[in-house]
Amino acid sequence: MAVKDFIPIRMNNDTLEVLDQTLLPSEERFIKIENIDALYEAIKKLRVRGAPAIGVAAGYGMYIAAKEAARSGSFEMIDNAAEYLISSRPTAVNLKWAVDRVTSAIHEAADRGTFITDLPSVALREAEAVRREDFDACMGMAENGLSLLKPGMGLLTHCNAGVLATAGYGTALAPIHLGQERGYGFKVFADETRPLLQGARLTSWELSKSGVDVTLICDNMASQVMKSGAVGAVLVGCDRMAANGDGANKIGTSGVAILAKEYGIPFYMFVPTSTIDLDTPTGDEIVIEERDPEEIRSMWYEEPMAPSDINMYNPAFDVTEAKYITAVVTEKGIVYPPFDEGLRKLFE
Amino acid sequence: MAVKDFIPIRMNNDTLEVLDQTLLPSEERFIKIENIDALYEAIKKLRVRGAPAIGVAAGYGMYIAAKEAARSGSFEMIDNAAEYLISSRPTAVNLKWAVDRVTSAIHEAADRGTFITDLPSVALREAEAVRREDFDACMGMAENGLSLLKPGMGLLTHCNAGVLATAGYGTALAPIHLGQERGYGFKVFADETRPLLQGARLTSWELSKSGVDVTLICDNMASQVMKSGAVGAVLVGCDRMAANGDGANKIGTSGVAILAKEYGIPFYMFVPTSTIDLDTPTGDEIVIEERDPEEIRSMWYEEPMAPSDINMYNPAFDVTEAKYITAVVTEKGIVYPPFDEGLRKLFE
Repeated sequence: MAVKDFIPIRMNNDTLEVLDQTLLPSEERFIKIENIDALYEAIKKLRVRGAPAIGVAAGYGMYIAAKEAARSGSFEMIDNAAEYLISSRPTAVNLKWAVDRVTSAIHEAADRGTFITDLPSVALREAEAVRREDFDACMGMAENGLSLLKPGMGLLTHCNAGVLATAGYGTALAPIHLGQERGYGFKVFADETRPLLQGARLTSWELSKSGVDVTLICDNMASQVMKSGAVGAVLVGCDRMAANGDGANKIGTSGVAILAKEYGIPFYMFVPTSTIDLDTPTGDEIVIEERDPEEIRSMWYEEPMAPSDINMYNPAFDVTEAKYITAVVTEKGIVYPPFDEGLRKLFE
Repeated sequence: MAVKDFIPIRMNNDTLEVLDQTLLPSEERFIKIENIDALYEAIKKLRVRGAPAIGVAAGYGMYIAAKEAARSGSFEMIDNAAEYLISSRPTAVNLKWAVDRVTSAIHEAADRGTFITDLPSVALREAEAVRREDFDACMGMAENGLSLLKPGMGLLTHCNAGVLATAGYGTALAPIHLGQERGYGFKVFADETRPLLQGARLTSWELSKSGVDVTLICDNMASQVMKSGAVGAVLVGCDRMAANGDGANKIGTSGVAILAKEYGIPFYMFVPTSTIDLDTPTGDEIVIEERDPEEIRSMWYEEPMAPSDINMYNPAFDVTEAKYITAVVTEKGIVYPPFDEGLRKLFE
């Protein structure tokens, strides 16, 4: 199946549709989002996930809000909808950024005297721009990443930094999908990524959708697979990169990076420039979110897999130190150490 | 609870009882083993697991066989029972070793003219010796291991090399239980150990039973925990050690060892001398068993967690290279590098 057929956010006959990722991998169903409440629910319940994908969906959400405002004649619905959408996942940076961007475009048009009935087309244009920029950034990372890889290579990835997290080819998985279209014949190992199993549920699903040869492993098997010589490069995403090149990503990424270094395997982190935070000097300043420990003990299972009276620790992210990263792949180019200098140059 | 109260193999009023580990951690139930068929089933279905524990249970199984032979007057029941028990898990070395040992003792007694009605006491004496030697070996590793640790230390372990796998204090967990009795106040991190979750289901259960402060983590969180400074030493078991000190153990062990080295944390492998195989020169000669991939995709879960059309790879073990092992702890003493020399000396 072509990547464009399972990009998880799409407009269909003027209606926003999102792939309900809570149903994967058992069921593939796009759900129609016909009002703001439905979008709030879809983001809150993780039917839409991945920072870029959430941002794109929320951009279209403001188009829905503008249509509701136009129908009712009540302009203040716009700001109410914006606030409401942002509250669906308060820590999602792209969500707020995209909502603010479309809302500002609406306000500016209104200030210029645009009729309220014409505001939806303003909102749609801006939401489309958000989507297109995300798609283009993914494609930039796809091309830049692919330049580092060779046909037939074995690759390893962790979590899901793919189509399902964006409105395009993904970040770390982008060169894999693009390589597939160009006949590269990669052999990809996907860490299942406990406790939320994004690798099992999402990465193995989307790679097999686009025809990639994918092998699912448990997280603790990465060392054995690397030692066997089956891995030519490791490709991972990034949730936030500090100015020195330390990158926070899904829990377990730092361990994969250390193994890659030990086995002499290049470790590439895929980082859209929107994810680089030059105001954070190093990874030490990045606070690691802890999540509900029941994700470890009882989620997914028929019955709890550990006694109820023990402690659990469930950090959602870890920081991979810059010294373990071979190169940072952005949509604007590839950055090699020293990262502090290279990352700064991207913004000049 | 004292360790002796949950040692998983015990004689109670002349009846063999085993802790049914398939019910853990939800239910703690000792089941009575009144005949050879019941023991065969208990081993086959993993109600009894862990090489030493299986061996001890099978030794008592030959006592049951001797009683049945005495009752029926049919001596050939002995050899039939031995063959049948060994077939319950054909690759379990300790199982065959213990069965052969008790069976030989019975044969020797018979050859000396012992009445068939007196053979059960011969079998029981030998089975008790097997159990006691395992208990003593565990205690030796407990004392030797404890000499490497300090009160209040943070420790990390992988899989279950504990009481539940032996008829004593365990191997890697032995010094933790002994330290608990002596007020050491360790803080232990247990890797959940995918896909079979021995860390979640068994290690966290048994450590909490004996009052140890235990924290369950996913395998991919070990790097984050080590980086935080919370781990002073890593303690793991071993399924087979080659002459050069390479050690095969549960999948994921080699990754933990590499992380420990990177973070400067001592990595101790607990290896009863019965597990050292001087006829295997290095870990390269150890064949890695692959298990049913459905253990990754669908076992434990309400529904499968990955698409059905992807590849999966499920190695049960990996080999930790000697260069990552700080010391090998045996019941006879602690061996430091160079291991080839030190391991050989244990057998002189």
